Amino acid sequence: MKRKSVDLNSDIGESFGLYRIGQDEEVLSFITSANVACGYHAGDPNVMHQTVKLAKSQGVAIGAHPGLPDLPGFGRRVMEVTPEDVYNMTVYQVSSLQGFAQLYQESLHHVKPHGALYNMAAKDPVIAEAIASAVRDINSSLVLFGLAGSELVRAGKKFGLKVAEEVFADRAYEPDGSLRSRTEEGAIIHNTQIAKERVLRMVAEGVVLATDGTDIPITADTICVHGDGEQALTFVKELRAMFLAHDIEVKAVTRT
Amino acid sequence: MKRKSVDLNSDIGESFGLYRIGQDEEVLSFITSANVACGYHAGDPNVMHQTVKLAKSQGVAIGAHPGLPDLPGFGRRVMEVTPEDVYNMTVYQVSSLQGFAQLYQESLHHVKPHGALYNMAAKDPVIAEAIASAVRDINSSLVLFGLAGSELVRAGKKFGLKVAEEVFADRAYEPDGSLRSRTEEGAIIHNTQIAKERVLRMVAEGVVLATDGTDIPITADTICVHGDGEQALTFVKELRAMFLAHDIEVKAVTRT
Amino acid sequence: MKRKSVDLNSDIGESFGLYRIGQDEEVLSFITSANVACGYHAGDPNVMHQTVKLAKSQGVAIGAHPGLPDLPGFGRRVMEVTPEDVYNMTVYQVSSLQGFAQLYQESLHHVKPHGALYNMAAKDPVIAEAIASAVRDINSSLVLFGLAGSELVRAGKKFGLKVAEEVFADRAYEPDGSLRSRTEEGAIIHNTQIAKERVLRMVAEGVVLATDGTDIPITADTICVHGDGEQALTFVKELRAMFLAHDIEVKAVTRT
Amino acid sequence: MKRKSVDLNSDIGESFGLYRIGQDEEVLSFITSANVACGYHAGDPNVMHQTVKLAKSQGVAIGAHPGLPDLPGFGRRVMEVTPEDVYNMTVYQVSSLQGFAQLYQESLHHVKPHGALYNMAAKDPVIAEAIASAVRDINSSLVLFGLAGSELVRAGKKFGLKVAEEVFADRAYEPDGSLRSRTEEGAIIHNTQIAKERVLRMVAEGVVLATDGTDIPITADTICVHGDGEQALTFVKELRAMFLAHDIEVKAVTRT
Repeated sequence: MKRKSVDLNSDIGESFGLYRIGQDEEVLSFITSANVACGYHAGDPNVMHQTVKLAKSQGVAIGAHPGLPDLPGFGRRVMEVTPEDVYNMTVYQVSSLQGFAQLYQESLHHVKPHGALYNMAAKDPVIAEAIASAVRDINSSLVLFGLAGSELVRAGKKFGLKVAEEVFADRAYEPDGSLRSRTEEGAIIHNTQIAKERVLRMVAEGVVLATDGTDIPITADTICVHGDGEQALTFVKELRAMFLAHDIEVKAVTRT
Repeated sequence: MKRKSVDLNSDIGESFGLYRIGQDEEVLSFITSANVACGYHAGDPNVMHQTVKLAKSQGVAIGAHPGLPDLPGFGRRVMEVTPEDVYNMTVYQVSSLQGFAQLYQESLHHVKPHGALYNMAAKDPVIAEAIASAVRDINSSLVLFGLAGSELVRAGKKFGLKVAEEVFADRAYEPDGSLRSRTEEGAIIHNTQIAKERVLRMVAEGVVLATDGTDIPITADTICVHGDGEQALTFVKELRAMFLAHDIEVKAVTRT
Repeated sequence: MKRKSVDLNSDIGESFGLYRIGQDEEVLSFITSANVACGYHAGDPNVMHQTVKLAKSQGVAIGAHPGLPDLPGFGRRVMEVTPEDVYNMTVYQVSSLQGFAQLYQESLHHVKPHGALYNMAAKDPVIAEAIASAVRDINSSLVLFGLAGSELVRAGKKFGLKVAEEVFADRAYEPDGSLRSRTEEGAIIHNTQIAKERVLRMVAEGVVLATDGTDIPITADTICVHGDGEQALTFVKELRAMFLAHDIEVKAVTRT
Repeated sequence: MKRKSVDLNSDIGESFGLYRIGQDEEVLSFITSANVACGYHAGDPNVMHQTVKLAKSQGVAIGAHPGLPDLPGFGRRVMEVTPEDVYNMTVYQVSSLQGFAQLYQESLHHVKPHGALYNMAAKDPVIAEAIASAVRDINSSLVLFGLAGSELVRAGKKFGLKVAEEVFADRAYEPDGSLRSRTEEGAIIHNTQIAKERVLRMVAEGVVLATDGTDIPITADTICVHGDGEQALTFVKELRAMFLAHDIEVKAVTRT
């Protein structure tokens, strides 16, 4: 029987000019997939170059993290964009990062949309398909990361891409598999012990306890982790140790 | 004996959002190399996509036209940038355009820096080498366009790139082969008949009459032409006809 | 009895850097209120200065036309902004234009939000109040322009501002007084004769024929006109002539 | 006899969107003049609002800190700008900040150009006069901050402005009164005791020891201090204590 495995991904390379954000060097030593900002919501060419170099040196799979063209809002604000806009901004950003990867004889491993674009693609099939078709047209062997069970996952499969379904350790799930809105009570799981146990069940058993008290099925190919602050880094280390203790391998999703 | 040939290049794809500039469709029917803006001084992902598609449909060689990050100044203002900045902004912009070319099974043909970056690279060996090394590291079969006899041409050769030396039909040349500054009298050749004759001598004989009345040697691989306004388009048509009449082939520079 | 009057307003100063848009000089000779872009969706400091100077020389009332921070989308794309964002971006943009007006001993006359911000403020009371309170806090004698009958008009009144209710000559109105969506059939009135007659009724009688065939009440303090293209300019001239023929004065809205 | 006084100024409000920089709250408790970024090299409307509110609450004089339009370079890169560009970008930025000050019944106290613009204005009389004339045209009672003995100080006086000559505690001065270039050895004074003694002589005696071992005259109306890091804050506190011990008042420059 095939040994279970799971990926740990994190957003990095989000500094810009003189502005520094995140602890990229530390987080890269614990994760297996890095989502690198491409200059639209964060990042700039100098930061992209350094981040690719750092990820490569640590053996972490390098992915593009395209966002909306909104530096003041860090790509977290929903914008009214056309499918053409989304397709082309995905081509632009993924290709620019691909250029830096090639400097180090690397090809990109995956694409994960950022912030508002990620959320829009989870719910809106038109946005989801614009992203998925752009990724396929750039390089059909790229892995597409999307919210587990979302429209983006569906779109990726439709366009023949390998997809990685992403779960969140610290978020509550509704009975339909969607994330509980941050504006609702109980949206965030603050107890790290409970968060870890939930993640373990998602990976090992393929289920998560929903807000109505029922277990719902979920696919957990990759877990989104954060790299800002000591607490976040500690949590990632504990996740790794937990998976090891349960004989679950922590590694990047295999490309097709 | 090998038949003489020359390339006609023009900057295109410089529209942005709702702002339209240039007559790209018309100019593409007369030129052999298109320098496509990459979003820093002009252009955006939607414009880049449309421009690549149009250039491909007309059989024009597609090149990247990277500029300084200065949309308000259209990349025409000199900025104090480090070699690292220049290297990385070149990788970023050329790679992003390469992504659009790949959508149409095209690979980029050349790189020509834009505006202030072009002028800086003509004189400053450090900037010139930052650009040339970036182009080589992205794809060593790209042709590097630079001012005839400039530091950029020298840097391109140093890094093993095929270079195309560029001349200007409507500009006066100093005895050292540099362009007469636009702030000096007589910098611009307004008489189109004289301009055409000068270009013909550059291409056919490899010489140009300098401001001191002497003939100086010049290499004319490619001629920069403009696409804004009827007069500019007429001039390009006349250049083509003139070269044809003198059995000089008008075609893109051959890649290595 | 007080003679009837109406204002003709137009968006101007929307060029940016090298990019030119609109026929500002021509349109200024026919309108009574100019809405000047402030650098967020269009315009830049050089353009703002020239536009203010031009409007002043033609005796046109100068207003600020603040937009969303979205140059690539020309401020036409809805963005998820907080009331704090909207309040502060309004203060920033209106104040920057006020600076240019002061150079010419002018104080601003009005504020009209642009594009998506205008539409958002028409429907969303929170956005509307963020704009209206910012305008009041900057200068309570500014006139606030908003879609006739909209939330922005209501918010302006709530905060004690003089408001100007704006109507559109070439748009169909739903029975509830809202504009028929551009995506619906019949949203645009293409027949200029019918458009003129509709505007005349709005101004003279305070009614407009809605899409269900009934007359609905509407307040028409100011009419939005366009300055791009000969046809648009001709229409504005015809509107002026029509109002004159009906003894309706064309003039800017009086400030408090 | 009039008691001696000196101003301590610092650049603040340089955060942008999600990016945080500087310890504005702490530094405001030690300085007497705050130079607030205006959105071109750093800062955004939300940050400007909060910064003005904070400075007001601490009784610190509020000044505008206009910079070049270069967020990626933090306004530290020299750009080729025209006098018209500089005049208008100064009007734009200073006026936008003035708007936020007015929300709190404050009028701006001073203007200090940022980074590359400050350095360009110190040496280039054309740039210096563009800034000084813009400041005069906006509000002739604003105090213009410039490098002691520089072209900007001269230009401010020429246009009838009150000027504040600025000195640096940690920089070496050449015999002609200019700052020793950072690329030269000995440009930075690392010993804080020596730095303090130099500043005291500048303020109390109007002289500074130049790099050639001679004392040169210098006017020290205001001292530039930094707010990033504990060491910088400690230095500011020590400066204050030193001035107090020498009966030199620490207060903002008086407006005309």
